[in-house]
Amino acid sequence: MNKPTTPKGMRDFSPDEMAGRDYIFNTIKKWFLRFGFQPIETPAMELLSVLTGKYGEEGDKLLYKVLNSGDFMQNAINEGIDFSNSRQLTTFIAEKGLKYDLTVPFARFVVEHFNELVFPFKRYQIQPVWRADRPQKGRYREFYQCDADVIGSDSLLYEYELITLVNYIFNDLGVETITKLNHRKLLFGITEILNITDRFIDFTVIIDKLDKIGNENVCNELATLGISNENIEIFRKIIEYKSSSSIDKLNFIAGLLSHSEQGIIGISELREVIGYCNSAGLTQNIEIDLSLARGLNYYTGTIIEVKAKDLSMGSICGGGRYDDLTGVFGMPGMSGIGISFGADRIYDVIKSLNKFPETVGSSSQVMFVNFGKDETNSILAFAEQLRKKGISTEIYPDAHKMKKQLSYAADKKIAFVILAGKNELESGKFALKNMNTSEQQLLSFDEIVQLLSTSTKAYE
Amino acid sequence: MNKPTTPKGMRDFSPDEMAGRDYIFNTIKKWFLRFGFQPIETPAMELLSVLTGKYGEEGDKLLYKVLNSGDFMQNAINEGIDFSNSRQLTTFIAEKGLKYDLTVPFARFVVEHFNELVFPFKRYQIQPVWRADRPQKGRYREFYQCDADVIGSDSLLYEYELITLVNYIFNDLGVETITKLNHRKLLFGITEILNITDRFIDFTVIIDKLDKIGNENVCNELATLGISNENIEIFRKIIEYKSSSSIDKLNFIAGLLSHSEQGIIGISELREVIGYCNSAGLTQNIEIDLSLARGLNYYTGTIIEVKAKDLSMGSICGGGRYDDLTGVFGMPGMSGIGISFGADRIYDVIKSLNKFPETVGSSSQVMFVNFGKDETNSILAFAEQLRKKGISTEIYPDAHKMKKQLSYAADKKIAFVILAGKNELESGKFALKNMNTSEQQLLSFDEIVQLLSTSTKAYE
Repeated sequence: MNKPTTPKGMRDFSPDEMAGRDYIFNTIKKWFLRFGFQPIETPAMELLSVLTGKYGEEGDKLLYKVLNSGDFMQNAINEGIDFSNSRQLTTFIAEKGLKYDLTVPFARFVVEHFNELVFPFKRYQIQPVWRADRPQKGRYREFYQCDADVIGSDSLLYEYELITLVNYIFNDLGVETITKLNHRKLLFGITEILNITDRFIDFTVIIDKLDKIGNENVCNELATLGISNENIEIFRKIIEYKSSSSIDKLNFIAGLLSHSEQGIIGISELREVIGYCNSAGLTQNIEIDLSLARGLNYYTGTIIEVKAKDLSMGSICGGGRYDDLTGVFGMPGMSGIGISFGADRIYDVIKSLNKFPETVGSSSQVMFVNFGKDETNSILAFAEQLRKKGISTEIYPDAHKMKKQLSYAADKKIAFVILAGKNELESGKFALKNMNTSEQQLLSFDEIVQLLSTSTKAYE
Repeated sequence: MNKPTTPKGMRDFSPDEMAGRDYIFNTIKKWFLRFGFQPIETPAMELLSVLTGKYGEEGDKLLYKVLNSGDFMQNAINEGIDFSNSRQLTTFIAEKGLKYDLTVPFARFVVEHFNELVFPFKRYQIQPVWRADRPQKGRYREFYQCDADVIGSDSLLYEYELITLVNYIFNDLGVETITKLNHRKLLFGITEILNITDRFIDFTVIIDKLDKIGNENVCNELATLGISNENIEIFRKIIEYKSSSSIDKLNFIAGLLSHSEQGIIGISELREVIGYCNSAGLTQNIEIDLSLARGLNYYTGTIIEVKAKDLSMGSICGGGRYDDLTGVFGMPGMSGIGISFGADRIYDVIKSLNKFPETVGSSSQVMFVNFGKDETNSILAFAEQLRKKGISTEIYPDAHKMKKQLSYAADKKIAFVILAGKNELESGKFALKNMNTSEQQLLSFDEIVQLLSTSTKAYE
């Protein structure tokens, strides 16, 4: 028999990986809650009528479709359709799909539960999503998204809140970041002065590549949109403008966009957001980036992208304001703003910076050596006292040779071992062995509790 | 447009439900860790070659199958198969399925990662599973399982550990339970004296219904297996034997099974397990139930079932020892024991007993009223100080009428509201309104921090 494996592009997580991931998720969750975001969950599956058409033609192809149960072909046979056309057949044999992101299910949630919700509704959601993408380094077919959104308000305070939230989370995780801000209306203003408002989407797609292909290539691509050389030079001036001050950058672009109604709105909104950040004392690690575009076209206001400083990795967090999340489900005019944290990239960043705290792990703190049934019966009550005090405790399962028992503890990275044989039990002093230093001391049980409670983490 | 909905049998979880569920999962997780169980996760999808044939014919029908990507019919066309045979076609157009439980993926995990693991391997896993079952009250097509297993040891200490673990968890959750124990070898011994060892599985299936159909009907069904009237009376004596002492029950059944090799092993193992429990002072809420069978046929040793006291609900937790979890993947002889907690039933039990602590919730603790942009800029630094102290804080997004702002806070069950208008900001004393009592007091910011830190939960 062949060794069984996970499907291509999908992963098991080992205890070590889980400990790191839990640390990240718990940190993100803690700050979500502190900002008043409340958790929801939606099913892994959605009806394909909910998912299809929301992610473009490419996205539709990447949706995992779930076969209808039972005699699923009966329906297709009754309709007399062409079985060899996989795409057409799909709609007859699969009515459900796996969720592709958390945004569309959230929009469905808001519409379905509209009457039960209080608006503005601040929700967070941490769940896996699935994409039948070509797997490659850092890209998986199943991965977690951690999203926070506020829906039902156009207040710019929420832009400020999300920027602040991002800052707290990465600060807590020990990752230095740059948060880049721009505004889709400001970008639209730029297309006005470049005379290509009708090519706005193409424009955003091209400038999104700045990091990858550089200024020169972007300018060349823009020329293909039919921009005059003179205007290309204006664009070049914009992306080459350097200042460490967000206010300077906004003043500079305001000079260029003074006749663009949209551009003026965008600049004014960014000024208000930057103003809130300054009032709260949040001035570091935030910058206006006039070339930031964000791929997703449902963004209509402020856009946000976060990168780890000093690491050439893509963005680890991003989001923005949208005007019409639920319009596609018949409920227009719901404005909102959201942010999404990429757990896999954040894990890789923390790992490569070696920033996981030493306490992050899932190993037991202490193990009792097994000296036989009589001794085991005598130590059980002690083991339970440790567990009740939040100290993760194992008892080696059999009275194997000492060497084997200690090597189990070492392999499992258990910090301490307690030796409580017949003599120790009689004397009331147990031997506590520190597995890192191999030091061993004779201690009363109370002294052991004291030492373990202070020297290692407790699960509270 | 029709209102979009979740697929049949699948659920959204609201913030209130999530708060209760997180409380349950976190309690279970805490105790799993304290017993040295380490977390793993496996993908939602497994290859159908891994899943198929592991859950019986009925189980295979309940597996959700995921359509292959791209032109999935090409394969079936090339093979020239009959398209109208849905079942046959499935194997050509779907190579993956959604996981049906956590046990089979765990077995696959152990075989795939055998060389990276330290045995005995204690793992826990909390993830959703999917079954295309007919939905009914309390039965869903997507639900979470919380499993803890030890694999690679036949030590009966692990039986003791799982029983103790169960006890701690339900104690912590405020649910009084009865943990029932039996042993598959003891049951086999009973079939020996009833002369129906060749009908062992049928026997376990019938006695599994005792709770539902009662002693008389079970005896009638057993008669159809060809048991003599005399032996039916012996069986009746067994299930009607009453004693509050587990030792008494084991002595009683030992008298009947004195010639059954298997029965003697089962009784001796249960004696050892009960002995450990007694040594640890765990004597309450545990009983031997000679009629407990557990539906799953891979159990070979001790079986465990937990019910809530005083509630006529099915079991909320169950498990047992198995001899050969990974044999089906070419790795025989791996003994282990596992326990599974049913999150949905536990939620219903705690809800119906009204045992969720008052602190369980995801609402913000405090909201700043919005008096306009100037005041907002002035209160931001205060809001951030609260958040940094672990106090969940919102700022109302717009300078709407006071009534509207307060009713948002009330609807969201936010406990306190801070009014910091122009006067309050100048005087340095803010008005703190208790939303439950409508009491309002003028306090310095430090006093507010003090009051909020002690009167409500903080997110640490």
